[in-house]
Amino acid sequence: MLVRSPSFEQFESYLESVLDGAAANNANGPLIREHFGLDDPDAKRGKRLRPRILLTVAEGEGGDGSVALGAAAALELLHNFSLIHDDIEDGDEMRHGRPTLWTRHGVRAALVAGDAMSALAYLTLVDGSRALPAATVAAMMGCLQLAHFRMCEGQAFDIGFETATFVTFEEYVRMIEGKTAALLAVACELGAWSAGVTDERAAAYSNVGRAYGLAFQVRDDVLGTWGRTEETGKPSGADIRRRKWSFPVAWALAQVPSADRSIVADAYATIGTLGEEHARHVIAALERLGARDAADHACLTYIEEANTISATQGIDGDGRLAALFRSTAQRTA
Amino acid sequence: MLVRSPSFEQFESYLESVLDGAAANNANGPLIREHFGLDDPDAKRGKRLRPRILLTVAEGEGGDGSVALGAAAALELLHNFSLIHDDIEDGDEMRHGRPTLWTRHGVRAALVAGDAMSALAYLTLVDGSRALPAATVAAMMGCLQLAHFRMCEGQAFDIGFETATFVTFEEYVRMIEGKTAALLAVACELGAWSAGVTDERAAAYSNVGRAYGLAFQVRDDVLGTWGRTEETGKPSGADIRRRKWSFPVAWALAQVPSADRSIVADAYATIGTLGEEHARHVIAALERLGARDAADHACLTYIEEANTISATQGIDGDGRLAALFRSTAQRTA
Repeated sequence: MLVRSPSFEQFESYLESVLDGAAANNANGPLIREHFGLDDPDAKRGKRLRPRILLTVAEGEGGDGSVALGAAAALELLHNFSLIHDDIEDGDEMRHGRPTLWTRHGVRAALVAGDAMSALAYLTLVDGSRALPAATVAAMMGCLQLAHFRMCEGQAFDIGFETATFVTFEEYVRMIEGKTAALLAVACELGAWSAGVTDERAAAYSNVGRAYGLAFQVRDDVLGTWGRTEETGKPSGADIRRRKWSFPVAWALAQVPSADRSIVADAYATIGTLGEEHARHVIAALERLGARDAADHACLTYIEEANTISATQGIDGDGRLAALFRSTAQRTA
Repeated sequence: MLVRSPSFEQFESYLESVLDGAAANNANGPLIREHFGLDDPDAKRGKRLRPRILLTVAEGEGGDGSVALGAAAALELLHNFSLIHDDIEDGDEMRHGRPTLWTRHGVRAALVAGDAMSALAYLTLVDGSRALPAATVAAMMGCLQLAHFRMCEGQAFDIGFETATFVTFEEYVRMIEGKTAALLAVACELGAWSAGVTDERAAAYSNVGRAYGLAFQVRDDVLGTWGRTEETGKPSGADIRRRKWSFPVAWALAQVPSADRSIVADAYATIGTLGEEHARHVIAALERLGARDAADHACLTYIEEANTISATQGIDGDGRLAALFRSTAQRTA
């Protein structure tokens, strides 16, 4: 079941109007607008997953989706602020098939444009939520700020991991909580707030979003190791070659000592990338250890957790949020 | 007259408790705390000008300064977030006599810590303003976000100016509006809001803070060109040698063509720094053009503008804000 969200069809033009306003009013506006690639007919746009979730929850709770467009645009802006800064931090030169902002305008201008975009996110939330009560907007601001703070924690862990020779499973989970789950949780929570639900109901949506977010990231990690290039657009085993701390690796190193565990541990105890042959060797060891099965199982467990929260708290009654996550997971598979 | 602010004496311990909380709860917390140099007995601390202004206004309006400590800490955090990113952008290795965060931890970790600090600023405003009505907190959030957005515009102009061979006087003013005046204006405005004043009164305080902020920056520009090293801590004529677009230069280039104007224009039409002799030549031309007098005059005019607003709007009745700005200007002279 793929649920249509009527308000999502207004989202692109709403976002564009926000970006046009910024471009007219702030020296950073043109770069902010350029990042989104609106003027490039060949540009692939983002999937807008977070606004889509937000609007799906808002409508599922009987809210007027058009009232939630400000929050949806704010969330997309906050997500993209993090992409601009991540691209600088990771030295990534391409995104959505186009050169990244720092590649075209230099690190300094891109850094400032990112900072301006995070301010614009909050301004957009306030400006676009005039139809909502002030207390609701205040609650929405608070949860978006907290998600922002946690997202930065995830990125700090991710950067620290690159030079780490060992990462505990708990550290890995905390990293993906910040890096992925925080914004998906707040997408659900903002959608719920904008529909005028109770505090408890909004918190339940946040917990569901968090669980789906963790499932989403673990699935992404499986694809980063076992996904085929034609499906993922990345070289096979890309995460292992880059020595990225993903679920299968963090899980494997949390197991009792064995020859296969040592193969993984030794590969990750060195700094730098792995050769193709070495990466294949590590991936085979992960499979023998059962890391792929463990990841698939963890993904299902998180989804079950989300479904259980929904059922016991009586949210997502018609299952449209569950359906959206299912279709998203299938699309990236 | 130097006015004591009772609540300012609580400020350092309040800020420290916010930083301790962040250090305990977020992976970026330790770097955020380290930036403030609390554990370094030799560290010079910032002047805390913005919190001092905010608390002075709050108390002048009859508010309880301790209720405004959250806003004061938020403003100091937002200011310091911009310093961390500015240091990265400008490649500055020292601040307050200590190595900057990026110098010690790398650009990536410092960039993320700055992002986390901006989120922490807003969280601190909300968390520390529980004693204020929700609508007041919402108004305070809105004006802080707008100041943040404008501050990023000032920095974008400043970066753009470095490779510019000509800058109009209007562009210069717009730059300092964002870079300096926006945060001083919002310091006044937040102080007023926290004391529960009307919208009109808060707006008047914002306008006063903006005018003082412009005066402050023009004064700083005069010192950057004519200040003595023992007063400013910088080499004499530092701004001219770095070919910085300051008030005297922007003003001089807005005058009718002349031999002296050409000396300035030609020096600024080249990229890179100027030699000591060349800089002296440019400074002499600026003096003959009357740029120093014009800057001094502009500074006085902005201060008069601030005083006129205060008088006509009936704010800053006992002149404590005016006194604070006067003492600040004297201290940096």
